[in-house]
Amino acid sequence: MAPVGQDNLTAVLYKINDLRLEQRPIPIPKDDEVLLEMGCVGICGSDVHYLVNGRIGEFIVNEPMICGHEASGIVAEVGKNVKNLKRGDKVAIEPGVPCRRCEFCKEGNYHLCRDIIFCATPPVHGNLTRYYTHAADFCYKLPENVSLEEGALLEPLSVGVHACRKAGVTLGSNVLITGAGTIGLVTLLAAKALGASKVLLTDINEKRLKTAKEFGADFTLLVNNSDKPTQQAKTIREMLGAYPDRTIDCSGFESSVQLAVEATKPGGVVVLVGMGSPEVKVPTFQALVKELHIRGSFRYANDYPIALALVASKKADVKKLITHRYKIEETLQAFETAKTGEAIKVMIHVHKNAKNM
Amino acid sequence: MAPVGQDNLTAVLYKINDLRLEQRPIPIPKDDEVLLEMGCVGICGSDVHYLVNGRIGEFIVNEPMICGHEASGIVAEVGKNVKNLKRGDKVAIEPGVPCRRCEFCKEGNYHLCRDIIFCATPPVHGNLTRYYTHAADFCYKLPENVSLEEGALLEPLSVGVHACRKAGVTLGSNVLITGAGTIGLVTLLAAKALGASKVLLTDINEKRLKTAKEFGADFTLLVNNSDKPTQQAKTIREMLGAYPDRTIDCSGFESSVQLAVEATKPGGVVVLVGMGSPEVKVPTFQALVKELHIRGSFRYANDYPIALALVASKKADVKKLITHRYKIEETLQAFETAKTGEAIKVMIHVHKNAKNM
Amino acid sequence: MAPVGQDNLTAVLYKINDLRLEQRPIPIPKDDEVLLEMGCVGICGSDVHYLVNGRIGEFIVNEPMICGHEASGIVAEVGKNVKNLKRGDKVAIEPGVPCRRCEFCKEGNYHLCRDIIFCATPPVHGNLTRYYTHAADFCYKLPENVSLEEGALLEPLSVGVHACRKAGVTLGSNVLITGAGTIGLVTLLAAKALGASKVLLTDINEKRLKTAKEFGADFTLLVNNSDKPTQQAKTIREMLGAYPDRTIDCSGFESSVQLAVEATKPGGVVVLVGMGSPEVKVPTFQALVKELHIRGSFRYANDYPIALALVASKKADVKKLITHRYKIEETLQAFETAKTGEAIKVMIHVHKNAKNM
Amino acid sequence: MAPVGQDNLTAVLYKINDLRLEQRPIPIPKDDEVLLEMGCVGICGSDVHYLVNGRIGEFIVNEPMICGHEASGIVAEVGKNVKNLKRGDKVAIEPGVPCRRCEFCKEGNYHLCRDIIFCATPPVHGNLTRYYTHAADFCYKLPENVSLEEGALLEPLSVGVHACRKAGVTLGSNVLITGAGTIGLVTLLAAKALGASKVLLTDINEKRLKTAKEFGADFTLLVNNSDKPTQQAKTIREMLGAYPDRTIDCSGFESSVQLAVEATKPGGVVVLVGMGSPEVKVPTFQALVKELHIRGSFRYANDYPIALALVASKKADVKKLITHRYKIEETLQAFETAKTGEAIKVMIHVHKNAKNM
Repeated sequence: MAPVGQDNLTAVLYKINDLRLEQRPIPIPKDDEVLLEMGCVGICGSDVHYLVNGRIGEFIVNEPMICGHEASGIVAEVGKNVKNLKRGDKVAIEPGVPCRRCEFCKEGNYHLCRDIIFCATPPVHGNLTRYYTHAADFCYKLPENVSLEEGALLEPLSVGVHACRKAGVTLGSNVLITGAGTIGLVTLLAAKALGASKVLLTDINEKRLKTAKEFGADFTLLVNNSDKPTQQAKTIREMLGAYPDRTIDCSGFESSVQLAVEATKPGGVVVLVGMGSPEVKVPTFQALVKELHIRGSFRYANDYPIALALVASKKADVKKLITHRYKIEETLQAFETAKTGEAIKVMIHVHKNAKNM
Repeated sequence: MAPVGQDNLTAVLYKINDLRLEQRPIPIPKDDEVLLEMGCVGICGSDVHYLVNGRIGEFIVNEPMICGHEASGIVAEVGKNVKNLKRGDKVAIEPGVPCRRCEFCKEGNYHLCRDIIFCATPPVHGNLTRYYTHAADFCYKLPENVSLEEGALLEPLSVGVHACRKAGVTLGSNVLITGAGTIGLVTLLAAKALGASKVLLTDINEKRLKTAKEFGADFTLLVNNSDKPTQQAKTIREMLGAYPDRTIDCSGFESSVQLAVEATKPGGVVVLVGMGSPEVKVPTFQALVKELHIRGSFRYANDYPIALALVASKKADVKKLITHRYKIEETLQAFETAKTGEAIKVMIHVHKNAKNM
Repeated sequence: MAPVGQDNLTAVLYKINDLRLEQRPIPIPKDDEVLLEMGCVGICGSDVHYLVNGRIGEFIVNEPMICGHEASGIVAEVGKNVKNLKRGDKVAIEPGVPCRRCEFCKEGNYHLCRDIIFCATPPVHGNLTRYYTHAADFCYKLPENVSLEEGALLEPLSVGVHACRKAGVTLGSNVLITGAGTIGLVTLLAAKALGASKVLLTDINEKRLKTAKEFGADFTLLVNNSDKPTQQAKTIREMLGAYPDRTIDCSGFESSVQLAVEATKPGGVVVLVGMGSPEVKVPTFQALVKELHIRGSFRYANDYPIALALVASKKADVKKLITHRYKIEETLQAFETAKTGEAIKVMIHVHKNAKNM
Repeated sequence: MAPVGQDNLTAVLYKINDLRLEQRPIPIPKDDEVLLEMGCVGICGSDVHYLVNGRIGEFIVNEPMICGHEASGIVAEVGKNVKNLKRGDKVAIEPGVPCRRCEFCKEGNYHLCRDIIFCATPPVHGNLTRYYTHAADFCYKLPENVSLEEGALLEPLSVGVHACRKAGVTLGSNVLITGAGTIGLVTLLAAKALGASKVLLTDINEKRLKTAKEFGADFTLLVNNSDKPTQQAKTIREMLGAYPDRTIDCSGFESSVQLAVEATKPGGVVVLVGMGSPEVKVPTFQALVKELHIRGSFRYANDYPIALALVASKKADVKKLITHRYKIEETLQAFETAKTGEAIKVMIHVHKNAKNM
């Protein structure tokens, strides 16, 4: 039975720089859904972007929207058709629910579904709230040894896993990651768990590279935009003792994409996962004669189970991504911290007991 | 036994606009080679380019170089280790012979070998000559029903086959080919033979599109550079009744690459085979969110047997690519014709009986 | 609005050898379904099997079951959520509707879904009836130039397309098909449409091989069970002039599977699609040292659009599979014909105008 | 310059149970070869098999043959065309050198080459000798931190790497390995390095399972041939908490192959790497409806660099495979130990300083 008359504190973005905490009705799960008592919700760059700019590309906050999509929770109630979960289960929440009927869904690329409902992408509500309903099959039961914080971190980690799978990172790969922000770090963790031999990260920010080292980078290289890609590529080759055969751009900068094409081994793969400039000048002639594979990597599909396996088997300590923790009541302060750019991951504890579960 | 004291008329490019016919010594095959009495040699755009410009990128004609690499011949003598061929066999000649020892060679990507010896790419000699030696395993025996002309045409056809395989063209594919020159046409033939449902070609030249229609294009679209890619993409979608899921750029123009990214179905493939601008402004954001696969396609590898099967099984009439025929004695005239750009394929008959074999 | 009080003649299998035609209520489509006025329904081997044996493996006819699953129809009514179809559309019906929620569904292998609802597989009803409801997204709109008969034939054709895709049949493939029954023939049609160079069929029945020739087989070989696989393999190699690199077993016999392993080129693929013996003695040592890929091929997934493209683009004349035609009122007689084993495909016209649409 | 008049003690198998140590002339490297001062040579099951039985299948010891193929060495001299190595380099030796010219070689499957020269497979000599020549490109330079013993162990490890790559083992895989002998153990090491979540080994020998645990197996299951595969499969599913999606048979027993088919998840992969019975009764019906991929895995191709990366990056401690060490002078004793079946890996030190390099 759904909780009635209870507290359902919710973070709602009304418009630019107008984020409010307010009570909302507790939703009722449909037959294939579960009602979740929310556990943890991480703040993503896109959440901050909507707060500051009110839009990302064609997605515009025209009406009040509940924030948040990096989340975990506890099953409070199950719809009548739900078989995979039961009350009390801890779960990670994959935030996009596709139509299940289009050709993309049928072919296993449900993340390319045109009718996907994705948390906190306008006009769809997110889950930074105490009670939230979600399709049961997009909730992944966490084993005992995976915490609510780790469950929420499966979201960014899945982005890294997806990018590495697109890149074909495997045992023996020499991987170049351009950009050492949060996406760069989760990509690093995934690459290592997939067996990469050597991983080198580049960034324009020395502090980020120091963090990358702490996260297991074999090499780091401080770059600046005036460096020539050919020179950078040569340096990278010398550091790795080989061409990188997989390069994953986690920055979205033109200079990084150019470096990726320049540096990557003939026949190798360049994955674009960092969103940046709408257009980039690419050395296509070189991409052609080297027969590079340049692949876009967007969100994730069928990656949550893999990310969960990575965390459950202790192949990486994702928790160290969290640099700041707040209660849901402190949401505005949490966003202020996230806006500074100093944090890696700001984690909001929605559940009162989130730190112990 | 090697023919001695015989005619070995040879087309040698000395420098820009200095192409000469002269006698050269008949070479002697090594143990793993065959001596070939040359049959037909087609003129490629690159041959013309070296004649007119003396270079392509970093490849410069510094010393006299024998022209030609789209070729067929008849085995005149076999080296002592050769088992796959015997005297009198008609063969198509794959013009690049790799080192066989590097990692690219071992992994099946011998066309990416850094030490490949490729006919008529400076400083390596080509085969527009009466007698020529070549690695026996890069000579493919032609069955009775495949002519010397068709054997020579396997070279450009292999470029089309390679591009279509990189694109994953298969039964049911909707294919967009940007550029209806020779490469566009061979790509069209290969795409149809691979089972493509519908193939649409674009070009800025109406005459080429008319030819494309004659070669089996389901649709053609005349474009000009002032058209917006979004509008062109919409028109293409309407003509095909679907997004193209495979796009193969055979032009190398920036506008074509942009159209390719704009038009291709999410999750689809864009292949770059037409060499053009060294750099192109690519809408990478769109490529990312659509998870496009952008792949370079360079020359060919393991494609000759497939191209041969295509021709031998009469899935396409490649001979209609030939618009002009000359004898080797008329080589200079043949190049003049090729320079006009009016021809599709200029074919030089080296063997006296080439038209009947 | 659903037709009321109308004729809904339906073929219901009560038990072994007890097939009845009777009136059934016209069903009402759910929100995501369409009501179909049925067009054509082909009789499959499995339909006959249930009639004669009352079961296939663990699937047992315990209650009266409507027959038929190779079907086409005309949309009579659309559920309120349906967008891909409208009244009057001719459609082919993919008979299996999966759960859409399990990992198999999410990964694009919906045909492996454990909870799939598949027409005329007990206890699920089929569609040999005048009015039938089906998930709208598993109904594929037929273009003008594809008939209701062809729409029904997409079902067996999809089996062949799926098998050929599992086998990786492509331009230049040399294909061995063991067994020249209906599945062998549709596999032949699909293989040719995918660009196979040469296709050789084996069977123990000379008449079937004659039909295979008429359907485009390049070679046929009459075999009998006392032949040694090594000798058969040698004969096949001589006929093809090469090892078959793809072998598709459409018979299910032990001798055919053994021949497949014996005959197939090292590194090649053997696909098992013909259902036969539960267990087969396989020369695994040879499969190992030749690094064969042996793959099961079960039904189809994402193959209907490809099969439809094959038919719509006239790459094969599937209609010649039909050897007998009956009206739904003659269903019992139609099954009698199917039982003789003399027919290739018995087609039942449910719609009064089925032969002209 | 080649060493002259020096000791070249060599282990030569004359016939069944007739293994002799004798002096042989020091060979001279060809232009593309290196002369190696041998470091370590492991004894493989096949070496023992030739000693005891004089043959494996069609490979028969008809003339005296030098033993050994799991080897490492130090470059003593380089042929004039050799560029990848220099005197003094420590190397691992990939024992099979293919023809480099056939279609298998060109397509990257050089291990399937019909003309491969493979050490210690009659009539080809092996390398259990002080001085040995080998194709330079099949010698892999060892970095400082990889020892001669580890270099020799790359051979069995490459078998495991190849099998795991054929199986597609990756992050999140649940792997079943049937058979916990040497091949089972190296497959386990490779599977873990590729990111497998959980690996379960079966064997009929409890001691081997104990070793598997020490090598990192998550689970082990003692089986005996009277167990029903369905029951074993159920137990395995319960232990893993999931179907194994990759099963690698390292035993070659019929019961193991049957278990593999029974236990593996629909759509999953079964790899056959353990050589055993020539024929096995396989539940093909089940393999078909589950759409299993059954793949042979034979030796290795392009796997040495990956195995080397695994060892160099310390992802696994392969040295613990070695249970016994002997000097080349003690070769007969070493083979006696290997014959008992009690050892995992018997390693022969050929170089006087092998234990420190």
